[in-house]
Amino acid sequence: MSENFAIDGLAPTQRIRGVLAPALTPFKADLAPDRERFISHCRWLLSQNCGLAPFGTTSEANSLSKDERTSLLDALVAAGVDPLRIMPGTGCCSIIETVDLTTHAVKHGCAGVLVLPPFYYKDVTEEGLYRYFSEVVQGVGDARLRIYLYNIPPLTIVRITPRLVERLLRAYPNAIAGMKDSSGDWNNTKTFLDMFSTDGFDVFVGSETFLLANMRNGGAGTISATANVNPAAIYQLFAECVGQSKFNNGESKLEHRQAQLNVVREVFSSTRFPSMIAALKQAIAIYANDPEWSSVRPPLVKLTTAQAKLLATELNSQRFAMTELRIN
Amino acid sequence: MSENFAIDGLAPTQRIRGVLAPALTPFKADLAPDRERFISHCRWLLSQNCGLAPFGTTSEANSLSKDERTSLLDALVAAGVDPLRIMPGTGCCSIIETVDLTTHAVKHGCAGVLVLPPFYYKDVTEEGLYRYFSEVVQGVGDARLRIYLYNIPPLTIVRITPRLVERLLRAYPNAIAGMKDSSGDWNNTKTFLDMFSTDGFDVFVGSETFLLANMRNGGAGTISATANVNPAAIYQLFAECVGQSKFNNGESKLEHRQAQLNVVREVFSSTRFPSMIAALKQAIAIYANDPEWSSVRPPLVKLTTAQAKLLATELNSQRFAMTELRIN
Repeated sequence: MSENFAIDGLAPTQRIRGVLAPALTPFKADLAPDRERFISHCRWLLSQNCGLAPFGTTSEANSLSKDERTSLLDALVAAGVDPLRIMPGTGCCSIIETVDLTTHAVKHGCAGVLVLPPFYYKDVTEEGLYRYFSEVVQGVGDARLRIYLYNIPPLTIVRITPRLVERLLRAYPNAIAGMKDSSGDWNNTKTFLDMFSTDGFDVFVGSETFLLANMRNGGAGTISATANVNPAAIYQLFAECVGQSKFNNGESKLEHRQAQLNVVREVFSSTRFPSMIAALKQAIAIYANDPEWSSVRPPLVKLTTAQAKLLATELNSQRFAMTELRIN
Repeated sequence: MSENFAIDGLAPTQRIRGVLAPALTPFKADLAPDRERFISHCRWLLSQNCGLAPFGTTSEANSLSKDERTSLLDALVAAGVDPLRIMPGTGCCSIIETVDLTTHAVKHGCAGVLVLPPFYYKDVTEEGLYRYFSEVVQGVGDARLRIYLYNIPPLTIVRITPRLVERLLRAYPNAIAGMKDSSGDWNNTKTFLDMFSTDGFDVFVGSETFLLANMRNGGAGTISATANVNPAAIYQLFAECVGQSKFNNGESKLEHRQAQLNVVREVFSSTRFPSMIAALKQAIAIYANDPEWSSVRPPLVKLTTAQAKLLATELNSQRFAMTELRIN
């Protein structure tokens, strides 16, 4: 299915673009991270033309300790994965810990870092968030730093606003590289694209549902949970949007592909499952015939047997639209 | 003002009760924690008959790193503060980090720990939260563990429900010692008191506004931000409620004291200040004539000069009702 138009081999000055998977974090029976399954999964994602955005929401990053996060990134790089295809999540509530994780990623030569706003306090001011990110940029103090601001108000409640981006871009034009918008509101994404995309500010949408719209409006791609199970098909739409496909990329064809992606995503975002994360892990468990993949850390819960059966049935009926999973 | 009815000298089997201050964390100019000012402030709070609940919301605990938290607790104990008067906050999003901080507190012999639910994911299930706290209890694996569940839905969104408490109490009757309810909803607190207070489940209210009501209904006291600046007056009401005061503690007298406390609290919770935390720190800066005390870590911001002046004026007019601050 995949066209294999690689997005790797970027020169260090080039920005990461395309489809990035917030790589799921597999756990062992004792809930420790499963390094081998993690690396295998990441390698498979790369083979499907996906970049990696490990330690995101879908990765259960905030359920990991700081040490687990640094150790998994070390393992990924040690396994030979090109850091220029990795954008790890490094945002914590504490500036100190965000600076530590970000410095670690920059030292590995990662393409960038995806940084949540501090999410414990609510009703914080724009000034407070500006100072938070300023402290992070100054604390890391490395010209290679590329920050992608992570706007996900359904989970953080705290929002990345256009005025905050404007101030940060003015103060740190090299360090502030873009954002991931998981607001779920296309009008919100469009506002950022209209205001900043011509300034070299790269907007990734947090769901492939908005990928076509994003690419039509100067966006950089998508960082989407579903890329963990459907990477090639999502990449295919990206490739056609940027004219890298040998296929006819007329508008109606693109819209048809977008519609197919949406159908698959809807399976995983169904409220019949306790969370999309648990459903994605269950899908890998099913396709790879590897039940251990279904584990999640509390407070998340895995699918019940009945829910897992329902998911298997639904996936089977959607198989025409979905990447065949070939986890090694 | 204070009656000096000490709540210290508890036998190890006795539970901590009374008025606990979620001790503010002072910062130096470079935003590093100021250990000396922290210890001085904690000592002053103890001298006012307050127990300590450091590393709470008011302490900006989630803006600290794990290492900063353990190092400050080490310093407090090394300074000779009785661990039986300390209930540190240890709840993080990650089970691993919550277990680490909790184990550290238990090894110090602290009276208990105040544990937030994991607060990154929203819409989590009761089952997921039950497993989270189960993992914490089992991960710490120490018979001395006393967990106080921290319900603060305005910040966590995630709630501690009566059904969750019921399940946890049944599974871990020794480890689950009580809760702090910062829901701001007396009916919610009352539900927990009615259901569990006769089972040795100690309910602290998260604001002294509800202290009289809590004590009339079998509660254990309050863990309140304002105790950082008004400890003796809050303790006075507690002491009178439990019959430890030599003063007349008729109902109308108690209600009068409660009303006085409420007036002081309203000064600090005014929306004219960016946050109650910043206002409390500014109050100490004013009374101790120590401007460095006003620092907060981003995303919080300190009061502007105009806001600081307004606070000084308001405090002056409320002085009759408030503990005189005597920070050494």
